[in-house]
Amino acid sequence: MTTPWYAAAPSAPDEAARAAAERRQGELTKPPGSLGRLEEVAVRLAAMQGTAAPDLERVRIAVFAGDHGVAAEGVSAFPQAVTAEMIRNFSRGGAAISVLARELGAELEVVDLGAAEDPGPLPGVVAARIAAGTGNLRRGPAMLAEELDAALSAGRDAAERAAEAGARLLVGGEMGIANTTAATALACGLTGRSPEALAGPGSGVDAAGVDRKAAVIRDALGLHTPDPAEPLEALRTVGGFELAGLAGAYIGAAQRGVPSLVDGFIATTAALAAVRINPDVAPWLVYGHRSAEPGHEAVLAALDAEPLLDLGMRLGEGSGAAAAVGLLRTAVALHNGMATFAEAGISS
Amino acid sequence: MTTPWYAAAPSAPDEAARAAAERRQGELTKPPGSLGRLEEVAVRLAAMQGTAAPDLERVRIAVFAGDHGVAAEGVSAFPQAVTAEMIRNFSRGGAAISVLARELGAELEVVDLGAAEDPGPLPGVVAARIAAGTGNLRRGPAMLAEELDAALSAGRDAAERAAEAGARLLVGGEMGIANTTAATALACGLTGRSPEALAGPGSGVDAAGVDRKAAVIRDALGLHTPDPAEPLEALRTVGGFELAGLAGAYIGAAQRGVPSLVDGFIATTAALAAVRINPDVAPWLVYGHRSAEPGHEAVLAALDAEPLLDLGMRLGEGSGAAAAVGLLRTAVALHNGMATFAEAGISS
Repeated sequence: MTTPWYAAAPSAPDEAARAAAERRQGELTKPPGSLGRLEEVAVRLAAMQGTAAPDLERVRIAVFAGDHGVAAEGVSAFPQAVTAEMIRNFSRGGAAISVLARELGAELEVVDLGAAEDPGPLPGVVAARIAAGTGNLRRGPAMLAEELDAALSAGRDAAERAAEAGARLLVGGEMGIANTTAATALACGLTGRSPEALAGPGSGVDAAGVDRKAAVIRDALGLHTPDPAEPLEALRTVGGFELAGLAGAYIGAAQRGVPSLVDGFIATTAALAAVRINPDVAPWLVYGHRSAEPGHEAVLAALDAEPLLDLGMRLGEGSGAAAAVGLLRTAVALHNGMATFAEAGISS
Repeated sequence: MTTPWYAAAPSAPDEAARAAAERRQGELTKPPGSLGRLEEVAVRLAAMQGTAAPDLERVRIAVFAGDHGVAAEGVSAFPQAVTAEMIRNFSRGGAAISVLARELGAELEVVDLGAAEDPGPLPGVVAARIAAGTGNLRRGPAMLAEELDAALSAGRDAAERAAEAGARLLVGGEMGIANTTAATALACGLTGRSPEALAGPGSGVDAAGVDRKAAVIRDALGLHTPDPAEPLEALRTVGGFELAGLAGAYIGAAQRGVPSLVDGFIATTAALAAVRINPDVAPWLVYGHRSAEPGHEAVLAALDAEPLLDLGMRLGEGSGAAAAVGLLRTAVALHNGMATFAEAGISS
């Protein structure tokens, strides 16, 4: 039996490059440590990119979209038709992530893994449709084994396209009506936390809606009994196409030596699945922002992750991570562009 | 007796523009509120700029530099010569704020209000030297009344140059060896908090150094007994040239209808002085980042201010605010560039 692609360990980040970058930080014209997390991020990027002078000019944003059978349980503030409508909005450039990609000069690729309605061929959208949405996780598994494989592989393929295009950073995003329900079920499965503790408003359901969501997730956990030690099975039974796509993308990017900048609750839950599937992916992940969705805290804690931004965002699409790309570029510009004490002739 | 320039109230931000911007935020293709503080900031900028479509293309960074007589008390990790050396480093483009200004395409102006050593004529440096540093606030007032007036006016002049050049946002920064000691003394004077509670490591003194700093400030407070109701006198006796320059710049920018993005502890202390001198300046200030310097919390609380970033930065120069400019531009780009539900034909 061969090892599946997603189990192959990525290389470790480059310790010599990390040490060289740390040394340089100590020589720049500022009190040591005074740039705070911008120093830490520059050093981590140096290690991941294997150079004392990291570079973030080329950034790829990949947004995975899919629908969820569990939408039938009335867990979302929006109708399911919105998934395909938003794919069109991404393609036309009107969505938040479209605007952010333009601002960053980043390439935006949308991967349709299975919206309920086929949006048809659209510029910037890769059709990798597995089915017209997942199964209703309250009543059966979200995915068949071959569907999970297809979603993971589609994520890896997107990461490989990014690497081929020369991207030095991957931002993963997601869109799919009802996907905070699937992500919360998966987060419960991977962390052992309760649906009542982790369920939140998602795109904007009220308190009664959050209770309904928690009850649906409780039923799903009773049906599938996901095991934190079996992340693939948890992803298959209570996950979703875009969650698996993101997990595959994080693994694939790490295997290609490309760092990923993780978005909010749903993306971080996918990152937790990726790290449980393949622990050597962990050092390749940077966390962009802390979401307002209550479940985010639990998955961040499970990953020992400290996001850069905390702006009360809860949109998804990769938007919080995209908002943090500028900070990463700032960190890199300072790292590469500041004078050293010796160059500036400054008393230290 | 005429009212001094700094007491003239700025106009209030434009409520019609604010309402129009709020309405637009509610129509964009995202769940309401899901962009968190990026929505709030876009709406505030709209009100300040008096337009439903704010613009941050032109940004001016003004860094005020000056030396401090209190450096003689051994309160800094660096020798006083570093102030003039850093002015040269700003001019040559090697300092953090120089790199940030280039990244942002922002104009950087350095205003020398009185380094101990005259750095001589330098590109990008405005010589507005008041004296070769302030007096030692432990032994006498930092400034004479006419010196305070000169520093406040130099700040206003910098804000006016920014407005004349078409800047839509002003970032104020500071440089001056021993200036966290002056800022902490001023923060104590304006908030009534104790030096022991607010003194911190500044550019990097150790615990014994922090104790020495607190003792120096305690002596200064005993000598000058600054009164929170007399902000000008507090600024004169325990402040510094660059603190007064920043306060004058915040007041002058507000009077010209230009929003200011406030940096860390020292800049926020100057902002508190500005708001105590002229309360109508408050709605014109946005706060860029939360500094690692312990006194920052107290002055932020006194201003009811919630900064955008929290990255453990403590460099000064305006660097934390400059790091937040990208977020403000992101907020504006999303506000102006996203499609509405109607434009995108999306079910809401």
